[in-house]
Amino acid sequence: MEILVTYDVATVDDGGARRLRRVAQVCTNYGQRVQQSVFECSVSKAQYEQMVDDLLQEIDNDKDSIRLYRLSMSAAEAVETYGVDESIDFNDPLIL
Amino acid sequence: MEILVTYDVATVDDGGARRLRRVAQVCTNYGQRVQQSVFECSVSKAQYEQMVDDLLQEIDNDKDSIRLYRLSMSAAEAVETYGVDESIDFNDPLIL
Repeated sequence: MEILVTYDVATVDDGGARRLRRVAQVCTNYGQRVQQSVFECSVSKAQYEQMVDDLLQEIDNDKDSIRLYRLSMSAAEAVETYGVDESIDFNDPLIL
Repeated sequence: MEILVTYDVATVDDGGARRLRRVAQVCTNYGQRVQQSVFECSVSKAQYEQMVDDLLQEIDNDKDSIRLYRLSMSAAEAVETYGVDESIDFNDPLIL
């Protein structure tokens, strides 16, 4: 499954900064950060369900927002980028 | 075309806040804001190209990042949301 995770965590309340760090950490376990709160993940169905569980442990349902988009192709194929782009295309040949 | 626009605008430098407002305004002209810097857009090819042009007028290529993801289904079908969700599903029947 090719998944794009985007999130907004409310950092105005106490605990927000901590939740933001932990949400980012969960996403890092499953994919690549491409923008502040956007991650590209290539995961199995089981990994996807575990990721969602992990994320739900960290967010405040009344204040934070998580969106998970199913892509039908790899993120590298689906995306067009402008300006700064710090992502890595894992489908590119690895030159040693 | 079903497009997901995500962006990071560097607001630490002067002019950043202004660029952020203008990027958001451009996206608002073409779609629906679903998170702070995430918009869902349903546009024609011509509108897509115009949106990209408009966005490139506003960003600083060396500091800001725009990512446009092609979705193969409507955003409402592609997305799973948790927590706060202020988006509107335009495919839902309009009840008057």
